[in-house]
Amino acid sequence: MIELNYRNVKSEIIGEENGLNIEEEFNNYKDTIHQIIADLNSNKDKPGQNLQWMNLGYNEETIWYVKEYAAMVENRFDNVLILGLGGSELGGQAVCEALLPPYWNFLSKEQRNNYPRIFFLDNIDPDQMNSLLNILDLKKTLVNVITKSGSTAEVMAQYMILKDRMEKELCDDYRKNVIATTDKNVGILKQLSDQEGYKTFFIPDDVAGRFSVFSAVGLLPFSLVGINIDEITQGIKDMDLALKNTDINYNIAAQNALIHYLMNTKKGKNISVMMPYSSRLRYIADWYCQLWAESLGKQKDKNNNTVNTGQTPIKAIGVTDQHSQIQLYNEGPNDKIINFLRVKEFDTNLEIPNIFEYTGISYLGGKTINKLLNAEAESTMASLIDYKRPNVTISIPKITPYYMGQLLYMFEVQTAITGALYNIDAYDQPGVEQSKNYTYALMGRVGYEDSANELKQKLSDTIII
Amino acid sequence: MIELNYRNVKSEIIGEENGLNIEEEFNNYKDTIHQIIADLNSNKDKPGQNLQWMNLGYNEETIWYVKEYAAMVENRFDNVLILGLGGSELGGQAVCEALLPPYWNFLSKEQRNNYPRIFFLDNIDPDQMNSLLNILDLKKTLVNVITKSGSTAEVMAQYMILKDRMEKELCDDYRKNVIATTDKNVGILKQLSDQEGYKTFFIPDDVAGRFSVFSAVGLLPFSLVGINIDEITQGIKDMDLALKNTDINYNIAAQNALIHYLMNTKKGKNISVMMPYSSRLRYIADWYCQLWAESLGKQKDKNNNTVNTGQTPIKAIGVTDQHSQIQLYNEGPNDKIINFLRVKEFDTNLEIPNIFEYTGISYLGGKTINKLLNAEAESTMASLIDYKRPNVTISIPKITPYYMGQLLYMFEVQTAITGALYNIDAYDQPGVEQSKNYTYALMGRVGYEDSANELKQKLSDTIII
Repeated sequence: MIELNYRNVKSEIIGEENGLNIEEEFNNYKDTIHQIIADLNSNKDKPGQNLQWMNLGYNEETIWYVKEYAAMVENRFDNVLILGLGGSELGGQAVCEALLPPYWNFLSKEQRNNYPRIFFLDNIDPDQMNSLLNILDLKKTLVNVITKSGSTAEVMAQYMILKDRMEKELCDDYRKNVIATTDKNVGILKQLSDQEGYKTFFIPDDVAGRFSVFSAVGLLPFSLVGINIDEITQGIKDMDLALKNTDINYNIAAQNALIHYLMNTKKGKNISVMMPYSSRLRYIADWYCQLWAESLGKQKDKNNNTVNTGQTPIKAIGVTDQHSQIQLYNEGPNDKIINFLRVKEFDTNLEIPNIFEYTGISYLGGKTINKLLNAEAESTMASLIDYKRPNVTISIPKITPYYMGQLLYMFEVQTAITGALYNIDAYDQPGVEQSKNYTYALMGRVGYEDSANELKQKLSDTIII
Repeated sequence: MIELNYRNVKSEIIGEENGLNIEEEFNNYKDTIHQIIADLNSNKDKPGQNLQWMNLGYNEETIWYVKEYAAMVENRFDNVLILGLGGSELGGQAVCEALLPPYWNFLSKEQRNNYPRIFFLDNIDPDQMNSLLNILDLKKTLVNVITKSGSTAEVMAQYMILKDRMEKELCDDYRKNVIATTDKNVGILKQLSDQEGYKTFFIPDDVAGRFSVFSAVGLLPFSLVGINIDEITQGIKDMDLALKNTDINYNIAAQNALIHYLMNTKKGKNISVMMPYSSRLRYIADWYCQLWAESLGKQKDKNNNTVNTGQTPIKAIGVTDQHSQIQLYNEGPNDKIINFLRVKEFDTNLEIPNIFEYTGISYLGGKTINKLLNAEAESTMASLIDYKRPNVTISIPKITPYYMGQLLYMFEVQTAITGALYNIDAYDQPGVEQSKNYTYALMGRVGYEDSANELKQKLSDTIII
C-alpha cells in the first residue's frame, strides 16, 4: 500500500511554533473526521452530491466499453491526440507520463509494442498547434475530443481546426479517426458526434472535471496506449476500502487532510508543495495542483460566509528543484508544507561506474544513481527539519498501474475531506464563470455586446493587442 | 521594446486594501531606486560583487569562441545532450524552448535545417536516464557537461555514466563528443577535461548559476541549435541601456521590482505568479521561478538580522491553467501578484474554420485562435480585477532572440533591484549548503562518517529505503 509518514510535522521535531501536537489534534478531530468519512460513503450514490467520482473504479460497464474499443483499434493508429484542458486532460497526461516508459513518443513502433504515441494538446497557442499539426500524420492519428459540457471554447476551437484538416485530408474516412468524450445527453459536442457518427464515450453526471480521471476521460487514453486499467481500478478499490475506515488513526487520506487543514488555519502555511522524487511523476504533481487549487480555493463557505479559503499548491521536482527552490523553502518565509512523494523501487537500477578514483568524486563510483537520488531526498528532508519546515512523506512501493490508482484516489479523498473541514463546496468553480462570459463578449458572441463594451472600459489600456 | 503595464495594481482599480498608490510610492522610493541603480552600474566591474552577469552581453570573446565552435561542429551531431541542473540548464532550456519551433525534437533533420535535437537531462531519475540512453545514438550525440564548481554530485554522476558508455561504444573517439562548461581554473571537471582533452568553455567568476544564462552556459547550446546569439546580445545591450536610467518613472525593471516588494511587504502578497500566455514561454517561467526564489528567499539580511524574506514564485500557463488555478487565484486568499506575460504577434495565425453554423459554437468560426487566446487572457485579467487581485502585464512584441535577450535581462535586473530593496544578498544560497554535506554523508564520502550517524538519528523512520 501507499504509506504516509507525518513525523516531520510534529512539534517534537520542528518545534511548537510550526509543528502540531498530532496525537492531541487527531483526538480533537476524531468525531469530525468520523462524520465526514461516514457522510462521504453514505452520500456517494445520491444525485446532486457530486460524489460520483467515488464510484468510478467500480463502473464495470465503462471499463468494458473502453477496453473493447481499445482492442478494436489496436494497431490502427500511430498517434493519439487528446484535445482537452484542465480536468479533461491533466489526469490522463499524469498517468500516461507516470506509467509509460519515459520518452515514450520518441520510441520506435517496435519499442512501443505497436501502441501509439500520445500527445496532449493542452493549450491554444497558435505556434504550438501549428507545429503539432506539422509532425502528425492525420491519417494515422486518432483524435479524442474531451469536454463534458461540449462548449469549452478552447477545445471546440481545437476540434474545429482539426476536423477541417482531417476532412480535407481523409475525406469521409475522417470520421473513423475522431472520437468524443462528453456528456451522455446534452451539449453541442454530443449533438455533433451523433450527426457525424463519431464513436462516443460518456462522462457521468455529478463528476467535476478534476475528479474525472477514472472515468472514460482517463481510462480510454490509458487503454489506447496499453496501460492495464484493471490493475488501476484494483488499486482504486483497495484504497477505497482502506479509506472507508472512519478512524483517523488508520486513514491516511484523513490524516493528510487534517494536517494540511491545520497547517493552513493554525500555522499560516498557505502553500502546499507536492514534490515527487521521480521525473515520471511530474504531471501527477500538476494534476494534484489542479485538484487542490480548484477544489479548495473558495470565496464562500456552505453557509455563504466569505472565507477565501485554500492553500496554493506548487509542483516541485526532486532533485531538480533542490537546485532552484530549496533555498527559498529553507530560508524564506515559513509558509509551506512540503509533500515528499517517494518511490521505493524504480524500474531501473543504474550504476555509477567506478571511474576517477582518487579524485573528489570517487565516492560516487560503484554506487547506484538510485542511491544518490534517495540520499538527496533525505538530505533535503533533514535540512527542512533543521529549518523547522513541516513536511510529510508519501511513499509508493513502485510506479505501477495498481499504485497509481491508489495514489490518485487517495488524493481525491484527501481533497474531499479537506473541503469538508473548510466547510466549502469542493466540487464547484464559481470563480471562473464570469471570465467565460467575458470571453464570449470579446469573441463577439451574439447576446454579449453590452458585456464587451463594459469589459473594454474595465481593461482600458491593459488590452494590448 | 518589452513593455510593462502596471495599471492593475493601482488602488483606483483594485481598491485600497490590495492596491498601491503608485505615484506616491514611486515618489517615496525615487531616491532609493536611484541609488540602487547607480550602485549596480558602478559596482558591476568590481570583483566580489557578483555582478559579472551584467557584463555577459558584452563579452565578445566568449561570443566569438562559442560561435567558432558551433560552426566547427555544424552538421556533425544529431543530438546535443546537456548534463546540468538548476542554473546550469534552466536558462538554456527556457530560451531553446522559446525560440526553436515547438516539438523541435520531433522534426526531421531537414525540417531542423540539419541542426541537432537538444535534450536537457535535469534530474537523476534512473528510469528517465535509462530511457534517454536508449533513444540516443551516442555516436551522433554531443554531451555538454555543465557545472561551475565541477563537483555537483548529480551532474558528475550523470557524466560518469555517460563517459563510461561512450567510451565503450566509441573507444577513444568519444573525447570529440564531450565538452565541458565549468570554472576556468579550479574543480574536478576542469582537471578531468584537461586530462581527457575535452573542448572546454568557461563560466566567469562572480556569476551565480541562476544569473549565468548569457555566459557560455546558455550561449553555447543556443548556438549549437542555430539560434542567433548576436541578436540575443543586442537585446541585452539595448535593455541594459534602457535600465541604466535611474529614474523609476522610466525604468520598467525598477517599477516591477518596487511593485513586487511593496505587494509583499505592505499587502501580504507572498506569492508571485508568472503566467505566460504562450506555451513556448513555459520554461521562461521556470527560469524566473529559480531566479526569484533563490535570489530573494533569504534568512538573514546584510546586517545579519533574521528576516526570512522572499515571495514564492509560481509558474502558470495561459490558457491551460485558467482551467486549473484561476478559481483559486480569483476566490482563494488574496495573497498573490500575477505577472501576465503576453506576446503581441505570434509566428502563426491560425484560423478557426467557419463550420458548424447555427450552433452554440458558431461565434468561433472565421476568427483566429490567436484572437481567442488574447480574449482569454483579457477575460482572466478582467475577472482578477473584479476580485481585486493585483496583476501586471509584461508584453513582448514577438518571440525572437532579440526580445528574449531583453526579457531575461530585464528579469535579472528586476531581481537585483528587489534584492537591494530587501537589503539581502541576492547572489548567495547558504540554505542549500548543509544538505550537500548530508548527501556526502549518506553517500559514504570519506570524512563525513559522524554526519551520517547524526543524520540517521535526525530522520529516524522517515528514511524509507
